[in-house]
Amino acid sequence: MTRAFTEIADRLAEQAIELPSWAFGNSGTRFKVFGQAGVPRDPFEKVTDAAQVHRLTGLSPTVALHIPWDLVDSYSDLAAHAAENGVALGTINSNTFQDDDYKLGSLAHGDAAVRQKAIDHHFRCIDVMNETGSRDLKIWLADGTNYPGQDDLRGRQDRLAESLAAIYARIGESQRLVLEYKFFEPAFYHTDVPDWGTSYAQVSALGERAVVCLDTGHHAPGTNIEFIVMQLLRLGKLGSFDFNSRFYADDDLIVGAADPFQLFRILFEVVRGGGYGAGSDVAFMLDQCHNIEKKIPGQIRSVLNVQEMTARALLVDTDALAAAQRAGDVLGANGVLMDAFYTDVRPALAEWRESRGLPADPLAAYAASGYQEKIEAERVGGVQAGWGA
Amino acid sequence: MTRAFTEIADRLAEQAIELPSWAFGNSGTRFKVFGQAGVPRDPFEKVTDAAQVHRLTGLSPTVALHIPWDLVDSYSDLAAHAAENGVALGTINSNTFQDDDYKLGSLAHGDAAVRQKAIDHHFRCIDVMNETGSRDLKIWLADGTNYPGQDDLRGRQDRLAESLAAIYARIGESQRLVLEYKFFEPAFYHTDVPDWGTSYAQVSALGERAVVCLDTGHHAPGTNIEFIVMQLLRLGKLGSFDFNSRFYADDDLIVGAADPFQLFRILFEVVRGGGYGAGSDVAFMLDQCHNIEKKIPGQIRSVLNVQEMTARALLVDTDALAAAQRAGDVLGANGVLMDAFYTDVRPALAEWRESRGLPADPLAAYAASGYQEKIEAERVGGVQAGWGA
Amino acid sequence: MTRAFTEIADRLAEQAIELPSWAFGNSGTRFKVFGQAGVPRDPFEKVTDAAQVHRLTGLSPTVALHIPWDLVDSYSDLAAHAAENGVALGTINSNTFQDDDYKLGSLAHGDAAVRQKAIDHHFRCIDVMNETGSRDLKIWLADGTNYPGQDDLRGRQDRLAESLAAIYARIGESQRLVLEYKFFEPAFYHTDVPDWGTSYAQVSALGERAVVCLDTGHHAPGTNIEFIVMQLLRLGKLGSFDFNSRFYADDDLIVGAADPFQLFRILFEVVRGGGYGAGSDVAFMLDQCHNIEKKIPGQIRSVLNVQEMTARALLVDTDALAAAQRAGDVLGANGVLMDAFYTDVRPALAEWRESRGLPADPLAAYAASGYQEKIEAERVGGVQAGWGA
Amino acid sequence: MTRAFTEIADRLAEQAIELPSWAFGNSGTRFKVFGQAGVPRDPFEKVTDAAQVHRLTGLSPTVALHIPWDLVDSYSDLAAHAAENGVALGTINSNTFQDDDYKLGSLAHGDAAVRQKAIDHHFRCIDVMNETGSRDLKIWLADGTNYPGQDDLRGRQDRLAESLAAIYARIGESQRLVLEYKFFEPAFYHTDVPDWGTSYAQVSALGERAVVCLDTGHHAPGTNIEFIVMQLLRLGKLGSFDFNSRFYADDDLIVGAADPFQLFRILFEVVRGGGYGAGSDVAFMLDQCHNIEKKIPGQIRSVLNVQEMTARALLVDTDALAAAQRAGDVLGANGVLMDAFYTDVRPALAEWRESRGLPADPLAAYAASGYQEKIEAERVGGVQAGWGA
Repeated sequence: MTRAFTEIADRLAEQAIELPSWAFGNSGTRFKVFGQAGVPRDPFEKVTDAAQVHRLTGLSPTVALHIPWDLVDSYSDLAAHAAENGVALGTINSNTFQDDDYKLGSLAHGDAAVRQKAIDHHFRCIDVMNETGSRDLKIWLADGTNYPGQDDLRGRQDRLAESLAAIYARIGESQRLVLEYKFFEPAFYHTDVPDWGTSYAQVSALGERAVVCLDTGHHAPGTNIEFIVMQLLRLGKLGSFDFNSRFYADDDLIVGAADPFQLFRILFEVVRGGGYGAGSDVAFMLDQCHNIEKKIPGQIRSVLNVQEMTARALLVDTDALAAAQRAGDVLGANGVLMDAFYTDVRPALAEWRESRGLPADPLAAYAASGYQEKIEAERVGGVQAGWGA
Repeated sequence: MTRAFTEIADRLAEQAIELPSWAFGNSGTRFKVFGQAGVPRDPFEKVTDAAQVHRLTGLSPTVALHIPWDLVDSYSDLAAHAAENGVALGTINSNTFQDDDYKLGSLAHGDAAVRQKAIDHHFRCIDVMNETGSRDLKIWLADGTNYPGQDDLRGRQDRLAESLAAIYARIGESQRLVLEYKFFEPAFYHTDVPDWGTSYAQVSALGERAVVCLDTGHHAPGTNIEFIVMQLLRLGKLGSFDFNSRFYADDDLIVGAADPFQLFRILFEVVRGGGYGAGSDVAFMLDQCHNIEKKIPGQIRSVLNVQEMTARALLVDTDALAAAQRAGDVLGANGVLMDAFYTDVRPALAEWRESRGLPADPLAAYAASGYQEKIEAERVGGVQAGWGA
Repeated sequence: MTRAFTEIADRLAEQAIELPSWAFGNSGTRFKVFGQAGVPRDPFEKVTDAAQVHRLTGLSPTVALHIPWDLVDSYSDLAAHAAENGVALGTINSNTFQDDDYKLGSLAHGDAAVRQKAIDHHFRCIDVMNETGSRDLKIWLADGTNYPGQDDLRGRQDRLAESLAAIYARIGESQRLVLEYKFFEPAFYHTDVPDWGTSYAQVSALGERAVVCLDTGHHAPGTNIEFIVMQLLRLGKLGSFDFNSRFYADDDLIVGAADPFQLFRILFEVVRGGGYGAGSDVAFMLDQCHNIEKKIPGQIRSVLNVQEMTARALLVDTDALAAAQRAGDVLGANGVLMDAFYTDVRPALAEWRESRGLPADPLAAYAASGYQEKIEAERVGGVQAGWGA
Repeated sequence: MTRAFTEIADRLAEQAIELPSWAFGNSGTRFKVFGQAGVPRDPFEKVTDAAQVHRLTGLSPTVALHIPWDLVDSYSDLAAHAAENGVALGTINSNTFQDDDYKLGSLAHGDAAVRQKAIDHHFRCIDVMNETGSRDLKIWLADGTNYPGQDDLRGRQDRLAESLAAIYARIGESQRLVLEYKFFEPAFYHTDVPDWGTSYAQVSALGERAVVCLDTGHHAPGTNIEFIVMQLLRLGKLGSFDFNSRFYADDDLIVGAADPFQLFRILFEVVRGGGYGAGSDVAFMLDQCHNIEKKIPGQIRSVLNVQEMTARALLVDTDALAAAQRAGDVLGANGVLMDAFYTDVRPALAEWRESRGLPADPLAAYAASGYQEKIEAERVGGVQAGWGA
């Protein structure tokens, strides 16, 4: 009661999942950042690592950068380096949470000077975008407060709107401002963009080229994320995904690791709403931290998880599903969906990869490649990249 | 570091909290509804009981009705009965969750005939509003699904939009459509209006007289409700409150019972955003179930809780607060807020009541009034009102 | 990297999942109970329906009863009826939540007379057990409070301990007292047995034949349930499971419907800890409500879900897993587990069923059997069974 | 309907709240640690700062140390320094989460060598205790896993039990092993001591001098913490509190800041169960992070919050409460509790302080003392203390 794999094979070729440069550097919790052998020491090495993932999977043609972590003297050099390695530079992410001035906020800060500094940082990001040819400026804000009364919620929201308008005015006609929301952390009492409703209201006030980024780890416990996917697609405002998974808070685990069925439901709704493939503007990215597992295999595992679930989502027999729904057949309709979820797509995907010149088992191919041993041996000097590097 | 009570005394007189007729009938959980002696047997007796709350507190001049629970032959008779008892009829609440046809939905149902039935029910509610002179048609929907795949999330959202448009087209120029949202229950996989963002998007598509109802028990664990209050006031779409409190799910406990500090923060944000008092259109209602405690004292306790917290919210020294916020004084700003919260407003409120011809202690006055004994003795025949009655 | 299905085929034959008689009657939420055609009108018809599930799946040889819902004049008659239908009577569940006297509690109530009434009810249940030959007396308590201060938490816990001791003293040498815990509902501020720790402490004080029941829907959001399974097995106190699933609260949905991966992890830990199969005393039961889906297919779907996940759990290559764990290979160890989870066991299980004289597709066999049409046609008079019937 | 303040004045003098040395150093989130002027550069300066809190409040006579953060050459020197400043050294906290060897665990690690290293660290902590005369060895473990299958839950639990037994065997007759539990973080899939039940089971297996530490921020959303307080006191296993508050996860905010009513309920249950005052062994500690607010005022605010809530808890008219509970008067019993909660104890506490030679307003006294300016001016060289320092 699912479609044949052959029916969906071509659609799978439309998939592209952007990798975050920071996933290749060290990361951790507030308690400890564990270093790993072979971690990149500069943006060039990050791009080199990201390219390995694409080389073995064919799924990740672009790399997202984080400014200032990925500042380099010449973005044409970095872009050329990427191209040499078979990938391209993608989304530019701003960072207004690691400067002392941003202790009490950035774009929503009470002090106009701090706000301007944060706006200027985004202007600089747009400059980078213009050099790299990036389409998207992604803004995640750590802005918020820890204690009730600490600041004026309404005033902050209004100031945020003003700051975003200033940034939006600067982006080009073919560029987008993508505003991420997050339930909590690092602020604990409130965050200034805590939910999709706020992000939606803010970007709607900006204009057509402002859209929402949905990070799958940024919701309250129990939130039906696929509903939000549906709603944002319906409203024409779903800009991009930050994929990861979580058991509790914003754990930033490998996408699909904590609740594979949720990932399936999300991807089914993406396909349902026209958010997948060549005709869609929705960008797929990973945003994860490999705190204890190896970075490159962690990224390979992640894009494969998305691919496998996309295949399951595409396999759903939508005609049978619609018929059962129309008939009010609760168990039958659910059964059509579950049938696709429980289908083991891995053998067919292995063949699919081989037919496209990719290794059947990218993780095994990586292990056999010697790349990990090579970088562990070579990258011994310098400063390892990390969240703060 | 708080204002003087005398400064806020007049503002307290602007307070009005609508009582739900159903709070006076029996209610319970899915496990058991416990009956209580003296419970009303018809809408007239419900109004009589509600009037006791207003007589003793001066806080609840109107009573909300639920259709069809509160269907009567003549609303002019019911309105006259209310007026005789010193109150008026208020918001009309529709009910599309207790008819067998609504098992799989009402306004979002896949079958056009069921949707039309639900729309027609709302037309009937509007007829009642025209008879009672009610301003608000409040719509809470039980629509949703229990299992992934059971129905098409997007199709339901589109059908809901159509149904709401049909209803909105029927309300009068001085009437409002108020759309409530709810995280979950009675549907368990998804609800069709699960969050403020969805309610906001839906009512925005309808027009100016469509607004959002915020029920304080209808959010995910950890949600910052006062932020939503702020945002909806900022967007001009906060229509009304359903007050209650909860520890876990939609417990419908006495407002302020579970987290008094949260109620304070909510009311502070209401005042901050212009949602309180004579100049505001925001309606305050209770939506509670007194499953094990006595109904009338439960309602008295509830409106007093709202009043006491409103007083504390009004007492905040907003100049001192703004100064501390501007200075980035985290502890100081929080301290100004907490100072008002920890102020014991009860003695001043007792005096305030007496100065207005109300009993200093409404609960004691109720206990001394003999009303409870009277209804327990008199209301022995007939069928007690309840959620289904 | 999973075991061969042939290696686990025999172990699957050890599986038995008890069905709850109440799953065949009507159930609902506090908002509405929707009736269904063909629903049983007495315990005999419930047993007949339960027997269909076993006939088609071979998985559910026993039926749990709920007292007083399933009170009959002669349990030997009911047992004979069950035997004729190929099943047997199982666990006896007490009920101290639907009598007016239990409004403020039962075994923990402040009034000794109410406590004694509740104890006596359990004595009656033990009498039934002696007639039916049941091993387990399962106690789930609705005891708790709605408001802080309503009662003395400590006093209630001590009274509960006394009441349980009185009941424990009455059970036979081959019988067990099984104490269920529940996070919340129907009480909202506190429940007297809210977590496994409390149940464990209470049953440990009773003796060896007192054990814990783990209902998969009775935990706080985010709780790692398989950890509790591991711990209770380690402590020798895991008595039984109530299987169901939930997105939010105690939704009582079909087991495996909300989070299949969680069910897999639970069953893996059951197998790991010796809780599965012939050598184990752990009882597997369903405790679900089919509010909107058909009852008998709902139960068939449920036992199949447990069976399929058990198969996946048994397929885990535990040697490879242990090796990866010893090597500190985070991704590798996770990969071994996921490999089993993503294996599609359905074709092999269909064959397995046929080899044992069962229908390959029990749901299709049920649909083709005409049984549903038969009961819908025949069971038209009388009172449908429900939670209160 | 509350007691007179005079009745409780003497009991308030029994209060002692230990301060954590690390609260005076820099702390932050995984995103950023913001440095503050005047932060201590060594354990001596931390003790000096802690002593300011005690000098102004009379509430915090001891300081908890964290090993290895607070390693010094001579603990007799540090103790003498403390004594000179009017305080003493208290609980010793171990740390097995910041060494690279502990990436996959410490006391529960799969490798015996790593476990022994972690055990040896605790032996060293016991050596320090013997020098400082500390009673309590507090163990909070970061042990856990991030991915299902990463390690064997049961094996880890058994290894943990062995490791704890080795440590317990080393503590002296007048010393205690205090085992903390935590729901999640820094591990995301499971933690090895996630709940009070696990901590209780582990310490019960050790012996009488092993007890549980309850950190108020280490529970699932919605958990009734005062119930756990009651249960652990009832079982004789409540060893100590780590006080803080949280809106979402383990936010480590100022105790009482997020939910003052919860703190009140906890302290009421502490008093109810004999956990307060001279006759009790329960230790009260803070465990907080002042990420954005000033450290010393943050600690002063914290101990004052605990004191104010303790006063309210002591004010409850327990006779009236018990009478209302016995009468089944739900609203009345709740009312007795709330009456104490809403009492403004601040004026009486200010007098109480003055009568004991303490400043009426410790925060104002601190601000006026010039101490903050002094340390900000003097502590300009060296390395600021922080979580990792």
